[in-house]
Order: sequence, then C-alpha cells, then structure tokens
Amino acid sequence: MKTLSENKCFGGVQGVYSHASKATNCDMTFGLFLPQEAKFGSVPVLWYLSGLTCTHENAMVKAGAQSWAAQQGIALVFPDTSPRGEGVADDDDFALGQGAGFYVNATEQPWAPHFQMWDYIAHDLPSLLFNNFALDEEAQAITGHSMGGHGALTLAMAQPDRFASVSAFAPITSPTTTDWGQVQLAAYLGEDQANWHRHDATLMMQERGFDGPVLIDQGASDQFLANLKPEALSHAMAARRQDGVFRMQAGYDHSYFFVSTFMEDHVSFHAEALYGLS
Amino acid sequence: MKTLSENKCFGGVQGVYSHASKATNCDMTFGLFLPQEAKFGSVPVLWYLSGLTCTHENAMVKAGAQSWAAQQGIALVFPDTSPRGEGVADDDDFALGQGAGFYVNATEQPWAPHFQMWDYIAHDLPSLLFNNFALDEEAQAITGHSMGGHGALTLAMAQPDRFASVSAFAPITSPTTTDWGQVQLAAYLGEDQANWHRHDATLMMQERGFDGPVLIDQGASDQFLANLKPEALSHAMAARRQDGVFRMQAGYDHSYFFVSTFMEDHVSFHAEALYGLS
Repeated sequence: MKTLSENKCFGGVQGVYSHASKATNCDMTFGLFLPQEAKFGSVPVLWYLSGLTCTHENAMVKAGAQSWAAQQGIALVFPDTSPRGEGVADDDDFALGQGAGFYVNATEQPWAPHFQMWDYIAHDLPSLLFNNFALDEEAQAITGHSMGGHGALTLAMAQPDRFASVSAFAPITSPTTTDWGQVQLAAYLGEDQANWHRHDATLMMQERGFDGPVLIDQGASDQFLANLKPEALSHAMAARRQDGVFRMQAGYDHSYFFVSTFMEDHVSFHAEALYGLS
Repeated sequence: MKTLSENKCFGGVQGVYSHASKATNCDMTFGLFLPQEAKFGSVPVLWYLSGLTCTHENAMVKAGAQSWAAQQGIALVFPDTSPRGEGVADDDDFALGQGAGFYVNATEQPWAPHFQMWDYIAHDLPSLLFNNFALDEEAQAITGHSMGGHGALTLAMAQPDRFASVSAFAPITSPTTTDWGQVQLAAYLGEDQANWHRHDATLMMQERGFDGPVLIDQGASDQFLANLKPEALSHAMAARRQDGVFRMQAGYDHSYFFVSTFMEDHVSFHAEALYGLS
C-alpha cells in the first residue's frame, strides 16, 4: 500500500492510498477519512460508493461528508468505481468500462480480467482496510450515489451480517429494466438474465430485504429519473414492510449539490445504527 | 447576464452566471448561493475570493460553505480570480495572468486591458448583483483563501464602509516582500513600489486597520508559509490593537480540507457581524 496524500481535515486525516488489488488485478486508489478518535482505538466505518464517471475523489471533495463524520467519530471510505490503467478495457460510452464498474464481477470479455468490483468492495478492500487502519470491522454501514447507491443496496442485501444500515442518494434501483443497467449487465455478465438478478436492488428488496434500517433520498427534479426508477424500489420497500424511509425531495437534481444537502441526515442515520451495535 | 446553471442546494439555489464586465472588458463567470430566505426579501451576503489557479467553481464545490450559509440565511458570492478568454493575456507561471489576478487594477502591458480585478470586485460585480438579486447591499462581509485572503483584506480596509467583517484562510499577507506578490505587483503595477502599498494587507493594517472584527486562520503545516508570511499580519494586527482573532491551526495545510474544516467558524463569525447591523 502506498500513501498518495494525507491532509488534516476536521481534526482527523483525509488520506488517499493506492494498492495492488487481487480482485481487480491492477492498482486501485481509494480515499479514507479517519476521525481523530481513530488515534485511540478502532472506529466505525461508513462506505461511500460513487456513481458513473467518478473516481475515489469526487465525493471526497464535494459531498461535505467529513464534517458530519468527524462529529460522529466515524471513518469514511471512498473507493474508486472501476479498475483503471493500461491494459484495462474501456468503452466510449461513459456508462460502460472505466468509471462504470457497476459493482459486479464481470464474466464476459473484454471485462472479466479486471472488472471484479463486487469482490473488490465485498472482500478485497475490506481486508486491506481492517488490517491496516484503526477501523472496527464489526461496525460497518454503507451508502452511495446513483450507480453507487445501486452498489450499496445490492451489497448490503447480499452481505446481511456485514452492515448495520444502508442508505442511498438517487440510486439506480432497477438496472434489469432501465437503460442504466441493461446494457452494462449484458456486457459484464452476459445475456442470461438469471445472472443479473442479484444486482437489481428492487428484485433483492422483494426477495430478501435488509435486516436493518434503510434510508433513500431522491431528487424530484433529477434529470435521470427514467434511469433510476425510484418508484420501483419505493414500491418494493413498502410491499415488504422494510424498516426504512424513502424521501422524494422537491426541486433537487442529481448533482452533488443534492448529495451534500442531505449528507448530514445520512451520516446521522448511520451513526445511530452503528453506535447501537456496541 | 446569462444563467449557466442553477441547482437546488440546502433549500436554496446554487447558481452560476456569466455577464459582460465593463471593468475587465470581457465576459466573467461567478457563482452565487442564495438561501431560501431570499425568496421573501433581501439577505446579507458573504463574498468569497479564491486563490491562485481557482475559478468561480473551486470553493463553490469544495469549501462546504453552503451548509452554514443556509443555516444563517446568508448568500455567498464566488467570483472568478481573473479575466479569461481569447485576447486576454496569460503567462506560463500559474501565479501570473489568468487565474492569478491578485485583485489589482493593472496599469502595465500586456495586462492593463483586462486585469482590472480590483474594480471588478469593488464596483462592477456588486452593481450587477445588487440590481439583479435579493441581496442587501447594506449587509456585506468578505472572506477569501490565499491570494483571495489578500484580496479580502485589502478590499475591506480600502472600502471601510462596505463590509461589516473580514476574514481570511491562509492569506498572502505581505506581497510587497514575498515571492507571491513581488513578481505580480511589478508585472501588473510597474516597478514603482509606492503603487504596491495599498495591496499589502500588512501595510494597510499598520496604517488603517479595519473598523470591525477580523478573523484569520492559518495552517501551521501549510506548504507555502514563506509566501504567506502570517507573522507579518499577526504582528500588525496585535500592534494596532485590531479587533480580531488570529488562529494558528496545528497540522493543517493549504488545501480545501483546511478551508472546509474552519468554514463553519467563519460563516458564524460573519453572521454575527452581519445581523448585528440590522
């Protein structure tokens, strides 16, 4: 692991690190905010998965999350959204390839050699983090924006003992039925739609749900509503009687101005679940 | 004036606008955050002047200021740091030319035709803003970062009736004696150092001071301390018995991770002065 930068921030440290990932078979970069409490012992950790076109950096500089995480004594992890670098496949479409890993393990060419973002977030990066930083593996929560909201929800429901709580900002909720999803799932996983199933948050909500609280925020003026399909997840949450809150926020769009507006609520929501564990 | 974007943010609107400036003789872009209170009447306004290499955008997306401004019901203005575009002079040095206007009125070639940033911030942009938005001209405060801290301090002391309060993050305090300043003041204003005088915050503090409260934050691990020379301003403030606070912040560097950490304090500081006016 290599330290690329460390900046003091809200009493803690905002670091950027790179490491050779076994999952993606290339170097990966991530951001990690450690609150000052991490000097004295392990702290809870909130994962933030980013959306299409983002690197580890976007949320780290634009979401304003460190302020609230510092107040709550919680660490923040900002992974990249795909493998990158020479020899890693890419596509002209911004919604496929580098910057658009969709948090799946690709089985198809040319993606399979590196696009193993599910394993990266589910196993590889956690293993690195809990071995190298003062983070409490027993106190994890997860959130994300857009494609990252999709990743947060599908990972949380598939790893039921790992996360105390899950939230999302404007998540892609139904990738098996929308433009942001069908193209990518076919490219990464092949045409057999049985393999897409566990990567659809709405289908997973219908089948399994989440054993903890769920918080979803969606802007009513989001320019990508047709690709996000919030009504699918909202319906599935209510039909399942899922412990959760789905909030439609009048006037907000898909930008980080929306994400940062509601970040305090999300960090507080996760803090309540995380500290309830101990 | 042209609207480039408007995003709902913390209940208000983060807008980006462009306009033809008479001062700089070219199109200028600025960001303006209006809190929700601006729907019902004029609100106080905090000017944020940015540092070297920045546009209107850096602080607008990285400083986390909207959260606190919304809480206080205060508008934020994010001007650009120089004229830009075809026909506008530039230099290979990032600290001269476009992105580095230093908030002066250039008298020398090739800068004089457009580099009139003093007049732009002192007269031109205020006139546009107060004629077009629900902003209270009688309730203004100013802050800035690095070169923008220099601009905030020198403008505030030169326009004593305009601002209720002034603050700065890691300001350039002594440009007549440091690398960030001597080159630029010579290029923009010529070799006669008598013309540099009013653009040196330390000299202005010694001579005039500011008729209101001053707040300065400086990171002790700032990588540019030699160019900022915080001890010059700190000495001048104390020697003058200036109403103010100078804070040396252990461990913090020059980045927006530093700025965002202390933004809440600065907005609260200005809010107290601004609401004290009415």
